Amino acid sequence: MASAGLSFENPLFAAYAAYASLVTLKMFFVTGATAYFRYSRGVFANPEDVKRRLKKGAVPRLDHPEVERVRRLHLNDLENIPAFLAVGLLYVLTGPSPGVALWHFRVFTAARCLHTLSYLAAVQPWRALGFIAGLLTTTSMAVQVLMAGAL
Amino acid sequence: MASAGLSFENPLFAAYAAYASLVTLKMFFVTGATAYFRYSRGVFANPEDVKRRLKKGAVPRLDHPEVERVRRLHLNDLENIPAFLAVGLLYVLTGPSPGVALWHFRVFTAARCLHTLSYLAAVQPWRALGFIAGLLTTTSMAVQVLMAGAL
Amino acid sequence: MASAGLSFENPLFAAYAAYASLVTLKMFFVTGATAYFRYSRGVFANPEDVKRRLKKGAVPRLDHPEVERVRRLHLNDLENIPAFLAVGLLYVLTGPSPGVALWHFRVFTAARCLHTLSYLAAVQPWRALGFIAGLLTTTSMAVQVLMAGAL
Repeated sequence: MASAGLSFENPLFAAYAAYASLVTLKMFFVTGATAYFRYSRGVFANPEDVKRRLKKGAVPRLDHPEVERVRRLHLNDLENIPAFLAVGLLYVLTGPSPGVALWHFRVFTAARCLHTLSYLAAVQPWRALGFIAGLLTTTSMAVQVLMAGAL
Repeated sequence: MASAGLSFENPLFAAYAAYASLVTLKMFFVTGATAYFRYSRGVFANPEDVKRRLKKGAVPRLDHPEVERVRRLHLNDLENIPAFLAVGLLYVLTGPSPGVALWHFRVFTAARCLHTLSYLAAVQPWRALGFIAGLLTTTSMAVQVLMAGAL
Repeated sequence: MASAGLSFENPLFAAYAAYASLVTLKMFFVTGATAYFRYSRGVFANPEDVKRRLKKGAVPRLDHPEVERVRRLHLNDLENIPAFLAVGLLYVLTGPSPGVALWHFRVFTAARCLHTLSYLAAVQPWRALGFIAGLLTTTSMAVQVLMAGAL
């Protein structure tokens, strides 16, 4: 059965692929948000980015609250999303119950969107909830992959 | 033979999957360590995280030695572990000698654990050794994938 | 047909694998560049790295312009390269036109090399062009994977 492996004919793989792209595009939204805050606030990290605005040799700012906020959000994405992309693929190959697996993908994607929006809006405990739900989902998949694997 | 591809019936893939999850869970351990240091030391990066402890508008600290240490360790994980997850999967598909491949996975995983523990304990040269061994292992796999591939 | 899946007998997969390794090795070049700047400039982030050079308890520097430049470059790699590695693999499985797919891989790899070199040389707008071209390439692949997938 081709439908048990890494093929878009396997509905579970097709679901994983869709959520994997969604969450990657969400991460790129944060890349765009960083660029937006840098340009709209005129805050750049490199002298060559500001040569028309600052005197030569001026120290670029690394302490703008909004820019640093979106950079911390981006770093949190990097700590969680690549792990999901890799572990999710392996998890599909463990042959999980499709319903259970689908909810792993949905909860992770929703959790990261919640994390992103509540980080930008500076609201707790929603940000912490989104972060923890995403981490637990990937941990659950990693444990199942570990049990299916062989050291 | 299904056992040559990405299936848990392929013993080499099953080994890759197990080490990939282990090293991901190790990375999440560092995520937990960051949270532990932030909460136990009361050091937060965002004003909304500390609203009960600091006055409104207080500047959150970004210079606590223990918290910054675990953040640097985490960043080093991000520079190495996602690369291993991706390249390791491609390496399995090059059909390497199983014994040689297994040692790549084991050395990488052990090296990253050594790196983590020696970063937290602030001991050199063990941290450098763990870092370099992990980097060389992934480089070796990447070169073998490059040679099996076609530009 | 085995040649449509994740196998080095599939020419498109073989191309993806080669570009994926190349771009990973390029990222490791930046890891080496960080080490080079740290050692040649004597700028370390951890007290245990400098115990022979600094007095005990000395604060390690986190503000050296060249070292911080290469660290920002590295972080930009982390924001883009793992996403390419994951999405590129899924994109191969969507069965794209081989010619179009090959150009995605080539443009991404060339764009990231341009980004790296122009970041180190501090020249704009080449750095921005490399960054944007790489981001658009991965976004294009992610959108195609999303359309082939099923939420």
